[in-house]
Amino acid sequence: MSDSVEDKRLKILNILRDNNEALSSQKITNHLNEQGIQISERTVRFHLLAMDKKGFTQYIGRKGRLLTALGEQELTKVKAYEKVGFLSSKIDEFSYNMNFDLEKKEGSVLVNVTLISQDDLKNSIELLYTAFEHGFVMGELLTIFFPEDSDDKIEIPKGFVGIGSVCSITLNGILLSKGIPVHSIFGGLLEIEDRTAKRFVEIIQYNGTSLDPLEIFISSGLTDHTRLCSSGSGVVGASFRDVPASSREKVIQIFERCQEIGLGSFLEIGYPGSPLLEIPVSEGRVGFIVTGGLNAVGLLAESGIKLYSKTLSGYVDFKKLVNYRELKKYFK
Amino acid sequence: MSDSVEDKRLKILNILRDNNEALSSQKITNHLNEQGIQISERTVRFHLLAMDKKGFTQYIGRKGRLLTALGEQELTKVKAYEKVGFLSSKIDEFSYNMNFDLEKKEGSVLVNVTLISQDDLKNSIELLYTAFEHGFVMGELLTIFFPEDSDDKIEIPKGFVGIGSVCSITLNGILLSKGIPVHSIFGGLLEIEDRTAKRFVEIIQYNGTSLDPLEIFISSGLTDHTRLCSSGSGVVGASFRDVPASSREKVIQIFERCQEIGLGSFLEIGYPGSPLLEIPVSEGRVGFIVTGGLNAVGLLAESGIKLYSKTLSGYVDFKKLVNYRELKKYFK
Repeated sequence: MSDSVEDKRLKILNILRDNNEALSSQKITNHLNEQGIQISERTVRFHLLAMDKKGFTQYIGRKGRLLTALGEQELTKVKAYEKVGFLSSKIDEFSYNMNFDLEKKEGSVLVNVTLISQDDLKNSIELLYTAFEHGFVMGELLTIFFPEDSDDKIEIPKGFVGIGSVCSITLNGILLSKGIPVHSIFGGLLEIEDRTAKRFVEIIQYNGTSLDPLEIFISSGLTDHTRLCSSGSGVVGASFRDVPASSREKVIQIFERCQEIGLGSFLEIGYPGSPLLEIPVSEGRVGFIVTGGLNAVGLLAESGIKLYSKTLSGYVDFKKLVNYRELKKYFK
Repeated sequence: MSDSVEDKRLKILNILRDNNEALSSQKITNHLNEQGIQISERTVRFHLLAMDKKGFTQYIGRKGRLLTALGEQELTKVKAYEKVGFLSSKIDEFSYNMNFDLEKKEGSVLVNVTLISQDDLKNSIELLYTAFEHGFVMGELLTIFFPEDSDDKIEIPKGFVGIGSVCSITLNGILLSKGIPVHSIFGGLLEIEDRTAKRFVEIIQYNGTSLDPLEIFISSGLTDHTRLCSSGSGVVGASFRDVPASSREKVIQIFERCQEIGLGSFLEIGYPGSPLLEIPVSEGRVGFIVTGGLNAVGLLAESGIKLYSKTLSGYVDFKKLVNYRELKKYFK
């Protein structure tokens, strides 16, 4: 039972958001009563007045009240615990909403957008090239966003550029579009020796975190792309996932096609019910490991380039992606 | 079924470790067979020779082989997935092994040891004072370790000092010593407004991570102790735990005593089965929130002082702890 004042106010804000139009206090009371919450219209009005003062709601005359941007923000802030499942849920939601056609190479894929200062662009292009050549980066494609490319979803402030690296969730979306459901299990720090994946040294499960493990590994300074790029041994972020055992051959075929068109592939794939790099896999499933899309920018962070925003994620038309080898042409 | 060569070798290393004495290849084979692993003595000898070469095992004559330090290291490195439960397990293990007597103020408590350069000590003492005065730090006690204080568990390299802040697991240990079992559920980023806990904005569950969430929050730059200490509003690491509902009064009494002797107390405690700061609590349990012991050093990290090692944890005699107010006397 959650009966605090704050709980009731959040429920009111939720109702306003879900309805997406002005509502009178009478209508809000009805909605609350339908949810099994015993509350009088008088009390609802009291809460609404308090929230008007805080700027969460706005009275617009006889039609009633609207949720303000501040109220919306309050709602997203407050749902900490619902965020716990966030990474797993976010991954599934992003996969489900992709519309990429692998055969026609049409539609959008998911990218992570990392902001850097425009002054760091030239230096970053060099480092990105090195990362794609020697680091464990997924595929060969990326894109650069400028402030003039800003849209609703991806906003690039003046003085910054956004590095759009293909997010490894793109591979889940492609598999799902072929009818193959993917479970994303954990993000881990993967030790690489002589360019071979050896073992996970740290693990954060997606269903127990509101923060992206791969972002955290980079921002905490736990990765070692620098050594990896120079010597072939290092530590990078990677994601452990599994698919139904019977889909193994089809998954391999799909990943071959992904590789052909520059989207990358799995780093390792296992066998039905067999552990992969010491990680147990359930009966009837096959584990696979993909490197993080963010590994493209890991080397930048380690080289002292300030990454201003961790990651914004958004869909980008596949046609806007370029091969990393072409970047140097553009930014001499 | 984990049947790789590497798996078998790890099982052999495990057997050597568990037995803690030299074992012949015959005995090792018997142990493996008892574990249901079909393997011949000949194959075991083959693996042992290969591991001798790698330096993981050492042949010491007729008695057989010992595990070397390198082999031990290999074992700890490789068990990534077993580490997943690590934080929960580590917390329980540390709580269980505490021997502090709350009435007599005798015995040891658990501290986090953070290394800083000796050159940063003076500056750090100032910042620690500020953190204890205005930050959300647990209790009032800490200790400083010098290289000459190094022992088996806590090693302070030359040129460094260790800041020993009381770890909040100490409170679990004290409750457990009174027969109250504590579940540690998650580490989160807690938003503080006007010196009041408002909500968790990020969460990492202890049973899904091999890394300490509170360490990660600080090293990723996600905390805001600086603003908290200057304005009373900010973001700090905190831990969400629960205890049996019927122990609520006793827990409060115990925490009052902890507070009296400088070990700190809970930040918030809930009611049976009721959510606490929007976080649901199971029926029959009472939730409580404690601030992180590491919050003492969060302000240092934000002020640009390099924390060399994240945390070593160890037990320290309660008598060695000093009140933060006395630190300035020592380090003028």
